[in-house]
Amino acid sequence: MTSNNRSLDPTNLGQKNTEQKTSLLEAFTEVRRQTEQICAHLEIEDLVVQPAAYVSPPKWHLAHTSWFFDCFVLEPLNLAQTSQSPKYHYLFNSYYKSQGEHWLQSERGQLSRPTVKEIMLYRQQITGAIVDLFESNSLSKKQIEVIATGIQHEQQHQELLLMDIKFILGHQPWPAAYESVADLDKNLLPARALGWLESTENISLFGANLNAFSYDNERPRHRRWISGFQLADRLINNGEYMDFMTDGGYRRPELWLSDGWDWVQKNQMGHPLYWRKQNHHWEEYQLRGLEPLNPNLPVSHISFYEADAFARWMDARLPTEFEIEAYCSKDKALFEKETAFWDPSEAVYPSPRRACDEFDTGLLWQWTNSAYSPYPGFRTTNTALGEYNGKFMANQYVLKGGCVATPKHHMRASYRNFYRPSDRWAFTGIRLAKDL
Amino acid sequence: MTSNNRSLDPTNLGQKNTEQKTSLLEAFTEVRRQTEQICAHLEIEDLVVQPAAYVSPPKWHLAHTSWFFDCFVLEPLNLAQTSQSPKYHYLFNSYYKSQGEHWLQSERGQLSRPTVKEIMLYRQQITGAIVDLFESNSLSKKQIEVIATGIQHEQQHQELLLMDIKFILGHQPWPAAYESVADLDKNLLPARALGWLESTENISLFGANLNAFSYDNERPRHRRWISGFQLADRLINNGEYMDFMTDGGYRRPELWLSDGWDWVQKNQMGHPLYWRKQNHHWEEYQLRGLEPLNPNLPVSHISFYEADAFARWMDARLPTEFEIEAYCSKDKALFEKETAFWDPSEAVYPSPRRACDEFDTGLLWQWTNSAYSPYPGFRTTNTALGEYNGKFMANQYVLKGGCVATPKHHMRASYRNFYRPSDRWAFTGIRLAKDL
Amino acid sequence: MTSNNRSLDPTNLGQKNTEQKTSLLEAFTEVRRQTEQICAHLEIEDLVVQPAAYVSPPKWHLAHTSWFFDCFVLEPLNLAQTSQSPKYHYLFNSYYKSQGEHWLQSERGQLSRPTVKEIMLYRQQITGAIVDLFESNSLSKKQIEVIATGIQHEQQHQELLLMDIKFILGHQPWPAAYESVADLDKNLLPARALGWLESTENISLFGANLNAFSYDNERPRHRRWISGFQLADRLINNGEYMDFMTDGGYRRPELWLSDGWDWVQKNQMGHPLYWRKQNHHWEEYQLRGLEPLNPNLPVSHISFYEADAFARWMDARLPTEFEIEAYCSKDKALFEKETAFWDPSEAVYPSPRRACDEFDTGLLWQWTNSAYSPYPGFRTTNTALGEYNGKFMANQYVLKGGCVATPKHHMRASYRNFYRPSDRWAFTGIRLAKDL
Amino acid sequence: MTSNNRSLDPTNLGQKNTEQKTSLLEAFTEVRRQTEQICAHLEIEDLVVQPAAYVSPPKWHLAHTSWFFDCFVLEPLNLAQTSQSPKYHYLFNSYYKSQGEHWLQSERGQLSRPTVKEIMLYRQQITGAIVDLFESNSLSKKQIEVIATGIQHEQQHQELLLMDIKFILGHQPWPAAYESVADLDKNLLPARALGWLESTENISLFGANLNAFSYDNERPRHRRWISGFQLADRLINNGEYMDFMTDGGYRRPELWLSDGWDWVQKNQMGHPLYWRKQNHHWEEYQLRGLEPLNPNLPVSHISFYEADAFARWMDARLPTEFEIEAYCSKDKALFEKETAFWDPSEAVYPSPRRACDEFDTGLLWQWTNSAYSPYPGFRTTNTALGEYNGKFMANQYVLKGGCVATPKHHMRASYRNFYRPSDRWAFTGIRLAKDL
Repeated sequence: MTSNNRSLDPTNLGQKNTEQKTSLLEAFTEVRRQTEQICAHLEIEDLVVQPAAYVSPPKWHLAHTSWFFDCFVLEPLNLAQTSQSPKYHYLFNSYYKSQGEHWLQSERGQLSRPTVKEIMLYRQQITGAIVDLFESNSLSKKQIEVIATGIQHEQQHQELLLMDIKFILGHQPWPAAYESVADLDKNLLPARALGWLESTENISLFGANLNAFSYDNERPRHRRWISGFQLADRLINNGEYMDFMTDGGYRRPELWLSDGWDWVQKNQMGHPLYWRKQNHHWEEYQLRGLEPLNPNLPVSHISFYEADAFARWMDARLPTEFEIEAYCSKDKALFEKETAFWDPSEAVYPSPRRACDEFDTGLLWQWTNSAYSPYPGFRTTNTALGEYNGKFMANQYVLKGGCVATPKHHMRASYRNFYRPSDRWAFTGIRLAKDL
Repeated sequence: MTSNNRSLDPTNLGQKNTEQKTSLLEAFTEVRRQTEQICAHLEIEDLVVQPAAYVSPPKWHLAHTSWFFDCFVLEPLNLAQTSQSPKYHYLFNSYYKSQGEHWLQSERGQLSRPTVKEIMLYRQQITGAIVDLFESNSLSKKQIEVIATGIQHEQQHQELLLMDIKFILGHQPWPAAYESVADLDKNLLPARALGWLESTENISLFGANLNAFSYDNERPRHRRWISGFQLADRLINNGEYMDFMTDGGYRRPELWLSDGWDWVQKNQMGHPLYWRKQNHHWEEYQLRGLEPLNPNLPVSHISFYEADAFARWMDARLPTEFEIEAYCSKDKALFEKETAFWDPSEAVYPSPRRACDEFDTGLLWQWTNSAYSPYPGFRTTNTALGEYNGKFMANQYVLKGGCVATPKHHMRASYRNFYRPSDRWAFTGIRLAKDL
Repeated sequence: MTSNNRSLDPTNLGQKNTEQKTSLLEAFTEVRRQTEQICAHLEIEDLVVQPAAYVSPPKWHLAHTSWFFDCFVLEPLNLAQTSQSPKYHYLFNSYYKSQGEHWLQSERGQLSRPTVKEIMLYRQQITGAIVDLFESNSLSKKQIEVIATGIQHEQQHQELLLMDIKFILGHQPWPAAYESVADLDKNLLPARALGWLESTENISLFGANLNAFSYDNERPRHRRWISGFQLADRLINNGEYMDFMTDGGYRRPELWLSDGWDWVQKNQMGHPLYWRKQNHHWEEYQLRGLEPLNPNLPVSHISFYEADAFARWMDARLPTEFEIEAYCSKDKALFEKETAFWDPSEAVYPSPRRACDEFDTGLLWQWTNSAYSPYPGFRTTNTALGEYNGKFMANQYVLKGGCVATPKHHMRASYRNFYRPSDRWAFTGIRLAKDL
Repeated sequence: MTSNNRSLDPTNLGQKNTEQKTSLLEAFTEVRRQTEQICAHLEIEDLVVQPAAYVSPPKWHLAHTSWFFDCFVLEPLNLAQTSQSPKYHYLFNSYYKSQGEHWLQSERGQLSRPTVKEIMLYRQQITGAIVDLFESNSLSKKQIEVIATGIQHEQQHQELLLMDIKFILGHQPWPAAYESVADLDKNLLPARALGWLESTENISLFGANLNAFSYDNERPRHRRWISGFQLADRLINNGEYMDFMTDGGYRRPELWLSDGWDWVQKNQMGHPLYWRKQNHHWEEYQLRGLEPLNPNLPVSHISFYEADAFARWMDARLPTEFEIEAYCSKDKALFEKETAFWDPSEAVYPSPRRACDEFDTGLLWQWTNSAYSPYPGFRTTNTALGEYNGKFMANQYVLKGGCVATPKHHMRASYRNFYRPSDRWAFTGIRLAKDL
């Protein structure tokens, strides 16, 4: 991250002056606008349904990201927003137990009320109230931090929105197209042969620097001994994954973790989430619609179990979270040039990248073999926001790198995304590793 | 049913002439209009959600009742309606196995597409095509019968729509009001003391006459020996049901059928479906909104298990389906005067009736102790429509009489409604019986 | 039932004198001995396991039938039997809610303690105590009735024991043989062509006479109008059922009740419970071991759903409970001669009967299309025994006739056995009926 | 481990001579005897039941540990053991997919056959055949390794046997006593105040040395950077855990991982597995029977979720697997003296140890916050035994240290036990850690 674009970073809390607040306000209004833009071309019906317990109706995201500011910024200031706030507090709290009872996640799709129109009104009231706070020029350092967190939180939900929209539209019996955000570029160049980047054993620092925004789970920055390893220089593509399937990948228990095999059997798994066979030909659903399966595109929307079985079939393994992060640290110049992490352009989403890039981070979240656990010295903060990430540190795996649906400013090398090993609706892919 | 209003009956198939076809066409256009009217005041969001597997999104009813005419009238004539028909055939077939694969009932709430707008367009296309058929003056007797069945079918779905709307709006965390159809009248007069109507043993005829429309499950008309019995002269009201609850009704296994007790325990049942306790006071959700519990209203939305336990607590029992039907036959004059069965007025739904009426049939469906079984001599017809009712003749109970949500012309003494003993979302109530 | 064997009937309560008590004592000691005899040739391990929630470990039956006498005869007399009685009261009460909390049925197979040895000791203590009561010559009429009920209760459990033993041994991966009771005789003569017995419409009396033992669910004796019908003169055999399977019986939804089809799909049903295909040949497990499928034997261990689908495939239907009972009443002489109901011989189980008998009742329980409901005028008694049968009158069907595992004195024309429509572990078969 | 007792270690494969084979033979016959001894005082009924899907009937362990030698030693030599071997291969394979289909784990309790007597005969045949192999003096190095693995495997099952026996007897409604192995010593001295052992940051080696037996999951030995930490000098005791409960531990979501809170809610958890409240007093089931809860005993049979919530309540955390292993390496002299790891005595189980020992490892397995993952450089072997441990490396946590039920020679500092975070039937306890 170069110094000249640091002032553009809405979440840089280093400078505490008017300039910084101005950029935070810009970032706030921009993130609010983007979220609404994501939903703008959907039908009301698309905003309401919940086809799986882990998917949320888009209108819920619209409301929940507003509630976050209502609850953690406005309410402590006694700035009750609307007469609806008490109801919405119950309905749109996601899981913050410290904030009292909340509506069950799995039943969000039962809520026909409040309507989309009422939720959009609520959004506008909250946005207006926060803007008023900025203009009243009385924001404390603590409030600025909470607002910055709220912006990051809403960016996370922008990606969740696209995951959920893809799931909703892609699971209609006749999948519908969604045009406003690019999915994996269909014009990606043919993949080159898989190459391997090497790293000898070393001691390195991992985790977030404190001079930019980070979540609690990326801290503290700490030292680790890393054994020598090799890292694939690109993601696995659909063609390679098809070879795995053709070789009986889903029918050979010796390739799978025990829980993975149970998952395959119980759910009768046989292909990635958005593949479907029509008249003996494979198709893949992208946000832009159903397409013939493109062997050059990175394989996407696969579970940790599938990624792990594929790696075993390749006589390789999944990388640790540190191996991916270490590689970034080792060859930072490469990363700055090649990945979206450091892209200074203003595009909300990184421009679709060619599959033949040196190290194609930023296309798909990469499953690691690192269980999601606290870093040494990790502490949850003693506030409501302290519930943020730590409570999910069990039965999940870390993913690194970001994807085509991740807002540009939301990617960073220390970012730790996490999902359950059976989850497939995130934009996930496979990068292999080997011991040196 | 008096002769002078017989010609107004859209389903009377006795006269096969122009007059009859005209009244059938009127009935058809009227039933189509009514269904849309029921949905007219809802939000799009209300039309989409499915808060329980047995509830259907209202938009599904709008489509399915159109599909019925598309599939059973137009398709046999090769009058393909729209380019959507093949998709809609898959999506909006309810359970007719003879019509091929269909979308799962429990997943109707996942369908954001087709949108409400698209479904309304489909409705108009189907309605228009049927009207054209009438005007082409070429309807065969068979086609007339199918259309008459389709009208009855759509009337059934009008009641289902109101059941589902009540469930959807009533299960919002803050239940929403629905104004366009009257629920139980809150101005019903205070209930008089429970009286008993007597019938000595006799042999009577049961089931449908062939000179008016009836479903297959009401046929054939046949003779039965009926032992002497007493039948309560009104429905049980909320006050009496509250006494049952206060006396530990839900905590005393000896009052319950074994399956009923398991149902109470598993679901932690303790009150009727739409009762809720707020600040130590009982409220009841009616379509018009939440109200303080009115002890004079008939208790509604209770399961067979609850009705049966209440009857045991009263040292009574539930009537058989024949005892209710027999009583109608025995005192037909009374029935014609007092119940909605024979009400010649033009109102779509019977006017809300006073609780002190002699025999308040037409307010709530009455659970009987008759398992839903075929009548002696029952035959399913050898057509797709033959799937209609017979396949559900297991694990269900017959209900008699109709309710405030039943279209007026859809009530008749021989009508056999049926639900599972745990179902509560229909407009059900309790009438007691005793052995003589 | 002829007068000269009435005195041999342990349950005839008509004569209240020494002679009767002597025969009741003989019946009591005999039934206790028979139960133990059934278990005598099993391994301890066989007596403990519970391979399905509805199956009970045989040792549980040994204990429960003793608890019945302990709880309903000895305890009211303050004849505490053993120091174990309080524990055993909790463990071996089946479902009598009036008798307090009890161990869950589905967890009976978790009880390694008390051991078989301890339970046999308990049996002997209870048997001894009841014999002492007889010898003390002080039994009241009420106590005699309870003991007679206890004997019938234990006879019921003798059949349940054989059902459970067949399930346990037959579900071992290598099914084990059980020799001590005859299953269906493998030397049954080839079935003759299916014939039909006719009955014209009539009014008849049904239910139990009061001058012999009967359960509450057989009473009161009452009058019914019976439409004309035809009844098959023998049970359906394996060969005919195989034709149904070959014709796609399990793959054609139009043949099944809706719940039945769901049951087939969910459980992947494709053949009767004890059939298995080995190396392209069908085998059937009988208590005496696995055998090549014998097409002449009556098809057995099928569910109501299967029986109903088979009947529809045959363009017939299942009989009502009254049609079977009526036929017995109509041609009583035939029944007395041909069926086990009236067999005066002393054999515990009726001798295996030839399939070509005129009316082969007594081989397998026959599913009827009669839901298990109360007779008009049915009243539960106001005692603990009043829980006996009435509480199961929902979601079950009546079976008539008895089977090879039914103790001889336990069969009678008015007997109403009942199971859920999906149950298959009882010795069930198919008799067809048709409307006249 | 001192050099003079190394020759007593049955699993030391360093010396490949007659002496070593003799000690391996001794170890083999001893471990076979011990397994039988553990079951010797149980009733046949106790050996058969399976009260939870994850519990195995003891007779299954008796057979499976024999099958291991039959399958991996005798079969490759074409030494077919008994005519039963093919059946037993199907029944007693646990999960080795490479060995073909196997009986479902959750249905082991349905197997009444083979009987205990038949299984004991099988054991003797297998033991005899292996002894013959030794005496034929023709064991290859590979065979010796497999036999050594089989001995370790059987030792693991000895601990599983005691876990399962405790579960079976402890879940009888009146828990039964099991005398032959000591549970936690009731005479443990009162716990001293909790102290903290410190370790500054350092780089250390972890994992197994290659000159003694180890499982694949302990290898390869590798280097790690360890941050500074504090480790509690004793386990948490019942009194301290009671304080947690009294302070609302099970009712405060902020103390729990999200999955842990769901687990508490779904299973209505409120106390450790073997605690029960009787007449307002807490009791704990130990193998020797129910006892009043002893506040000085280490709290046992708790899940990872409970351990983690307790640690959060104490403002501490669970240690990593390396922190416990590192402490052992750091103060090896202490470890050798105080823990069972290095105890040279011949007792099968370590003598019950006082709670006030410096570092009471060997009493209870200690939950760590380390997800069970492969070590850097981990490779599964390319044999059937390669299925051993690696396939379980998902959704489980590592436990360190051993317990009162662990055979003495089975404990070592590098040992990695693993269970799911909700599992409680292992002998587990809590050791706390803190960041320095």
